[in-house]
Amino acid sequence: MAKKIPHRLYLTEEQMPKQWYNLRADMKEKPEPLLNPGTLKPLEAEELYPIFCEELVKQELDDTTRYFDIPEEILDFYKMYRPSPLIRAYNLEKALKTPAKIYYKFEGNNTSGSHKLNSAIAQAYYAKKQGLAGLTTETGAGQWGTALAEACAFYKLPLTVYMVKVSYEQKPFRKTVMETFDAKVVPSPSTTTKVGRAILKDKPDTSGSLGCAISEAVEAATSNPGYRYVLGSVLNQVVLHQSIIGLESKIAMEILDEYPDIVIGCAGGGSNLGGLIAPFMQDKLTGKASPRIVAVEPASCPSLTRGKYAYDFCDTGRVTPLAKMYTLGCDFMPSSNHAGGLRYHGMSPILSKLYHDGYMEAVSVEQTKVFEAAVEFAKHETILPAPESAHAIRAAIDEAILCRQSGEAKTILFGLTGTGFFDMTAYNSYLTGTMTDYIPTDEDLQKGFAKLPKLDSI
Amino acid sequence: MAKKIPHRLYLTEEQMPKQWYNLRADMKEKPEPLLNPGTLKPLEAEELYPIFCEELVKQELDDTTRYFDIPEEILDFYKMYRPSPLIRAYNLEKALKTPAKIYYKFEGNNTSGSHKLNSAIAQAYYAKKQGLAGLTTETGAGQWGTALAEACAFYKLPLTVYMVKVSYEQKPFRKTVMETFDAKVVPSPSTTTKVGRAILKDKPDTSGSLGCAISEAVEAATSNPGYRYVLGSVLNQVVLHQSIIGLESKIAMEILDEYPDIVIGCAGGGSNLGGLIAPFMQDKLTGKASPRIVAVEPASCPSLTRGKYAYDFCDTGRVTPLAKMYTLGCDFMPSSNHAGGLRYHGMSPILSKLYHDGYMEAVSVEQTKVFEAAVEFAKHETILPAPESAHAIRAAIDEAILCRQSGEAKTILFGLTGTGFFDMTAYNSYLTGTMTDYIPTDEDLQKGFAKLPKLDSI
Repeated sequence: MAKKIPHRLYLTEEQMPKQWYNLRADMKEKPEPLLNPGTLKPLEAEELYPIFCEELVKQELDDTTRYFDIPEEILDFYKMYRPSPLIRAYNLEKALKTPAKIYYKFEGNNTSGSHKLNSAIAQAYYAKKQGLAGLTTETGAGQWGTALAEACAFYKLPLTVYMVKVSYEQKPFRKTVMETFDAKVVPSPSTTTKVGRAILKDKPDTSGSLGCAISEAVEAATSNPGYRYVLGSVLNQVVLHQSIIGLESKIAMEILDEYPDIVIGCAGGGSNLGGLIAPFMQDKLTGKASPRIVAVEPASCPSLTRGKYAYDFCDTGRVTPLAKMYTLGCDFMPSSNHAGGLRYHGMSPILSKLYHDGYMEAVSVEQTKVFEAAVEFAKHETILPAPESAHAIRAAIDEAILCRQSGEAKTILFGLTGTGFFDMTAYNSYLTGTMTDYIPTDEDLQKGFAKLPKLDSI
Repeated sequence: MAKKIPHRLYLTEEQMPKQWYNLRADMKEKPEPLLNPGTLKPLEAEELYPIFCEELVKQELDDTTRYFDIPEEILDFYKMYRPSPLIRAYNLEKALKTPAKIYYKFEGNNTSGSHKLNSAIAQAYYAKKQGLAGLTTETGAGQWGTALAEACAFYKLPLTVYMVKVSYEQKPFRKTVMETFDAKVVPSPSTTTKVGRAILKDKPDTSGSLGCAISEAVEAATSNPGYRYVLGSVLNQVVLHQSIIGLESKIAMEILDEYPDIVIGCAGGGSNLGGLIAPFMQDKLTGKASPRIVAVEPASCPSLTRGKYAYDFCDTGRVTPLAKMYTLGCDFMPSSNHAGGLRYHGMSPILSKLYHDGYMEAVSVEQTKVFEAAVEFAKHETILPAPESAHAIRAAIDEAILCRQSGEAKTILFGLTGTGFFDMTAYNSYLTGTMTDYIPTDEDLQKGFAKLPKLDSI
């Protein structure tokens, strides 16, 4: 007899993972190293210390240590909102008339509204431990900024958040949430930094981008004594912290005697996806299992599906190290009609390498189709998803429909990264039929590729 | 050795209650019956059928059946978002340096953002079962409307929501959430009903009230064939459904070998409070235990602490039955500078009776003090509370501070009814120092009392 599967499974505190898993340790071919843009040589830890916390630099550069102990203080913080539930989407399955079993790991049940808190608390903890004066960061849709504001308030660390201007304007309430947690919020590009002023001079009407906000936050960190910069995605350290999502998911599925045939996650900078897939990718890398792993990105910002695998800057202002990744060019800005997050020009170097080496797939989806899936999901599962998360829902629904057609009872696991309470402007535009789709032309993309840094020596 | 208390305790599906508990069954003196305002005689079921679903009328009038089985379909829906966690506020305790043990039952982890979904799904289920064409309701802060919209979308039942105008204007995104779940949302008072037009003629600039929205929703239900009206608070049936909160809390505390010395809940119409305290009040009524039970209401709408225990209409338009309850008079409208919900002029007849008979206490708190507690709580416990819920937080913090002063390690349980994601306008007004307090004068209150219905024959 099949095991009875509850609607929601929560691990106990005893069952929760006590270590993060470092995916790089099991990659035979490692991601390419970060380069110093001046010398084009791999960066040493000492070069990163002025920008990042020391402990985080060590995590960033370590591609051999398989497991990192999660400090007791972080475990205690995790217990305030974790474990997150693994949910069986019984009602969605019924509505889709699919034989597929759909599971999702829901990371939205905390005030930051997303998985971002998993890395935010780790980064704030290490900053506090190092005795820093404060932190700077960027935020796009606002989830990362909110998460970091919460984490910094907990440790009483000052924080300045550069918020992508289009989000700052579309989501005034996000700003207030961050201010509730004592953060200072600045719309980006701003006149408070050199790089912001330069971008504004060049494109006065820009609606901003994550790449641009990163440039400003890095400048603000390096020009304020005792400050460091922290980033909510892309970096190896962030994928490491987010492995908690996948580790919890895998333990929960083992309790249910389940294993996913397909693992699906939305992909912007790659932190959620990298975290969700980590232990399943480990199985794939070590030959223990071979689940399909699918990244879902917006058609308006298609770094994996239409980008180039090349060294590029992580920011628009070209002040960061160079990373080898799938990129649309660091000047790429998605059209401002794009509602959700996932607006980043690049992609986690770990995920880029895995995709390049054939360990995972990628699909891109248009936003009206994404919101269609979001509303469908909300009505059956009673959770209003963030637009970012709804990219994964779209792909999961599409896979479940294929199962209906083929009669296969596949087990699908997707990451529901967050809630959409601050995205009602976008929902309203979908509901009133004014939302449009945007797909960059090949010509648009060529412009970005043409400006990729020339690294003939590599 | 003391039992190790986890940060969050979730019951398993097997541990979840399968019945609602009807507090009235254990009350030696029952709440006074609803009266027909024309005849001043106790209402018969048949008189209520044109307004309410039949099954709900039975629950409303039954003051002897101790337990009602929760239908399987509702249990299945509950499993999508319940059990809600019982959380030990370790970090708040630490910040307050209190020896008290603070627990809270958190009902905000669903898209409606509050406990309201517990009754909404029950009411939608019975409406569907009766084959109704649709439902009407009112909403204040928007939580009930959102919850009912979710429940109706699940059963594909048409729904019209009359939303108190001040909330409609302050919370446009709440409207969009309800629309995402296919509800029709009308600001109240509106020109779509006779009673709305009359109120607007009398007070063209009114910001609305729950009592007024109720009048409109009742009229809309009774004038549309196949429609019925549903209410999210005050009624006995709602307190019955909400007993799930207290029943889960009590089971969870038993697992932890705990029992509360003090149970605290915010009180607007009384549904959350009635539900949370139900099994603890049972212990008190049956002499098994004697916890203190504390209702917390806004100083701007102080029905228990400054109201009269009298028969009154449940609505402003005087179209509903008469209920014996603590009331400020059905014309009472709190000042529009009052930010949160809990704007109702009356109070659940069950709770009114219990308060009148000395089984519970009540305190009123000013909103700036409430928001101060909300921000403090958010920083330590990482949950951004709804202003309504923050009333209970305020009282819990005050009790914990008293414990610090007296050195007593009391066990405090409070209800955290929901999240504040849609209340950022109010948070912003608190953070920027523009929030003010409002306390009605005795003269203000006398005006309301003067208009109480004269029932000399009773």
